[in-house]
Amino acid sequence: MIGATSTMTGGVTAPRGFRAAGVSAGIKADGGLDLALLVADVPATAAAVFTINRAQAAPVVVSREHLGRSGGVARAVVVNSGCANACTGEAGMQGARDMTEQTARLVGCPPEQVLVASTGVIGVELPIAKIRAALPAAMRALAPDQGARAARAIMTTDPFPKESAARTTIAGVDVAVGGMAKGSGMIEPMLATMLAFVTTDAAVPQPLLARALRETVDETFNAITVDGECSTNDTVLLLASGASGAAVDESTYPAFAAALRAVSVELALGIVRGGEGATKLVTIRVSGAADAAEARRAAKAIANSPLVKTAIHGGDPNWGRLIAVAGRAGVAFDLSRAGVTIGETTLFDNGKPYDHNAPRAAEYLKGNDLIVGVHLGAGQASSTVWTCDLSADYVRINADYRT
Amino acid sequence: MIGATSTMTGGVTAPRGFRAAGVSAGIKADGGLDLALLVADVPATAAAVFTINRAQAAPVVVSREHLGRSGGVARAVVVNSGCANACTGEAGMQGARDMTEQTARLVGCPPEQVLVASTGVIGVELPIAKIRAALPAAMRALAPDQGARAARAIMTTDPFPKESAARTTIAGVDVAVGGMAKGSGMIEPMLATMLAFVTTDAAVPQPLLARALRETVDETFNAITVDGECSTNDTVLLLASGASGAAVDESTYPAFAAALRAVSVELALGIVRGGEGATKLVTIRVSGAADAAEARRAAKAIANSPLVKTAIHGGDPNWGRLIAVAGRAGVAFDLSRAGVTIGETTLFDNGKPYDHNAPRAAEYLKGNDLIVGVHLGAGQASSTVWTCDLSADYVRINADYRT
Repeated sequence: MIGATSTMTGGVTAPRGFRAAGVSAGIKADGGLDLALLVADVPATAAAVFTINRAQAAPVVVSREHLGRSGGVARAVVVNSGCANACTGEAGMQGARDMTEQTARLVGCPPEQVLVASTGVIGVELPIAKIRAALPAAMRALAPDQGARAARAIMTTDPFPKESAARTTIAGVDVAVGGMAKGSGMIEPMLATMLAFVTTDAAVPQPLLARALRETVDETFNAITVDGECSTNDTVLLLASGASGAAVDESTYPAFAAALRAVSVELALGIVRGGEGATKLVTIRVSGAADAAEARRAAKAIANSPLVKTAIHGGDPNWGRLIAVAGRAGVAFDLSRAGVTIGETTLFDNGKPYDHNAPRAAEYLKGNDLIVGVHLGAGQASSTVWTCDLSADYVRINADYRT
Repeated sequence: MIGATSTMTGGVTAPRGFRAAGVSAGIKADGGLDLALLVADVPATAAAVFTINRAQAAPVVVSREHLGRSGGVARAVVVNSGCANACTGEAGMQGARDMTEQTARLVGCPPEQVLVASTGVIGVELPIAKIRAALPAAMRALAPDQGARAARAIMTTDPFPKESAARTTIAGVDVAVGGMAKGSGMIEPMLATMLAFVTTDAAVPQPLLARALRETVDETFNAITVDGECSTNDTVLLLASGASGAAVDESTYPAFAAALRAVSVELALGIVRGGEGATKLVTIRVSGAADAAEARRAAKAIANSPLVKTAIHGGDPNWGRLIAVAGRAGVAFDLSRAGVTIGETTLFDNGKPYDHNAPRAAEYLKGNDLIVGVHLGAGQASSTVWTCDLSADYVRINADYRT
């Protein structure tokens, strides 16, 4: 937890006014939880950011349509894992619409107040009959204490569920923000991350809610990468129930934004920690960039470099690879003023190597929460990006994902 | 071998007028060959392309300087493996100059007629004393039949040496083109590849030689990728001895360019086949792009995707990942007209999945020379790029490269 907000347990049902459920619809071959439902007691204000991948999955298209038609109001979110419903043609569009229509019928709201998300294998037909059959059970299971089960139902290759919740005070009223997210491959969100669902019991006008989400996403879900892959299904949804009675306006916005950021950072870092095959969380801090965009670009290039990620996996302080990536990142870079630090140890500074410090850096790299700094020597701007190491397990997980 | 040129055995010493040597200078800890020398009997016409990485290694800086000062003439090339001499500050620059000066003294030519290249770990001091001590032995070992030994002396993590040679006829005279190259990590050349040295016994005016190299590199060394990493040391050198007596001019240029392309393609594909941990050579053919630059960009994005590379490694026809990468590649893309073929098998066409063809594609993926086609549905342009699969061995090789 960051800032003036304080931590609390729970996830999407930590804020008042939300119930959730996670059930098994039989989409996953192993019979695991694969259908999640999140329902607000009354219509909630809703904001979303979606993938900018041009091969957008059917649920992304449908959810965007519904948000437009409802004017930013949502009663329910229905999510399946085990099938991405992407590249599935007209049948996939029909399946995504069907999921929202069935849910709307059960909840008792217009279909456009239901949002939908899917995650899993691309290009495989959505088993809509299984989902239709399982929805009534999900509806019956809805409860304010079932957020953790919903968080497990949206997992694919994730090694653990990601939940986060924070509380803050707005106009003297206790307000909660809660969320759940899933990774863990195809993670380099360009406007959003794979799937994240955040709720609050504050009352937030839609434009302010959309602004809060946009600002938060840029420094959290958009600042992480596992494998440089932007998914077809990336979706972040933020729902505000207003059930706390606290209203967010311009004056109370900072407190709300801080709580939202705290939850989003924890979920985003959870996605990286649970990245496919990941054993280490790595914070990449790029400084000395010509501008913020170049700082972010260099940081992302380093964070996605297989040579950097494998070296970190092996605990090898191969700092030359960091400089090599910075030099090819297409940003202003001055080798004679550049530098590298691993933890507190300087390995390269103003163009001179300090390779005798490598053993100290190697010792530091045995840890699993690491900070790496790269100075471009070209200006004053900086950016922070989070990534994970690249292990042989990443290859094992992805070499036979479908089988 | 491609085109009207015919194949021949050998490498850089296949063309007349060149001698080579490979010796052990003790740079590599295992005592393997690590110092190569290539000497032309008379000053050769020379052209080069170098890395565009902004963190250029000392030998790149020195070789570029020398080519400028000599006006495109070279007598010798000295290459060490086991140390990249990159990010080594002023001492590294001095070491690179020292290598050329010692070689020039032994060969009996001006220092600017000696070109230098290095490959190995970045940021480690060049063991110049060892190189100085070994150069006389390399000089004594020079012979027209030692090209294969030179090709082994430039290897780092390469699983096998890369040599190629081709012959053609120019104005009735038999002309040879030969070359050697090394990979096998940090390979996504932006103007050149790691290290490649190509020779010919044709007499080629320098401007024509430079043009031939530039045109060839774009479709060969610049069309391959192993890990998306552009090295600090990438260098391709082309030396023409004229020893065949055949002179290349505008009218005979196509024959020469075809032979050069044949040798370059074989070396470039050798680098990919010998990519770190590689078990499969994959040809990525992107079609239906808005223009050639977008076709290349999409092809490179697919060729560098860890999810595509691991799926191919596992023989998994996970074609949805190909579409997902095409969709995020930042190029014009129309999902409703896009398509994917693996070998001869269609898996996605005009936006419709043919996932029932997956078993046939899986059978094809058991091979180790694979063709994957992705149609963007946005235009008429196309591009071909070569890559390899991503295996757990890649991680093992790179997790402890320095140790």
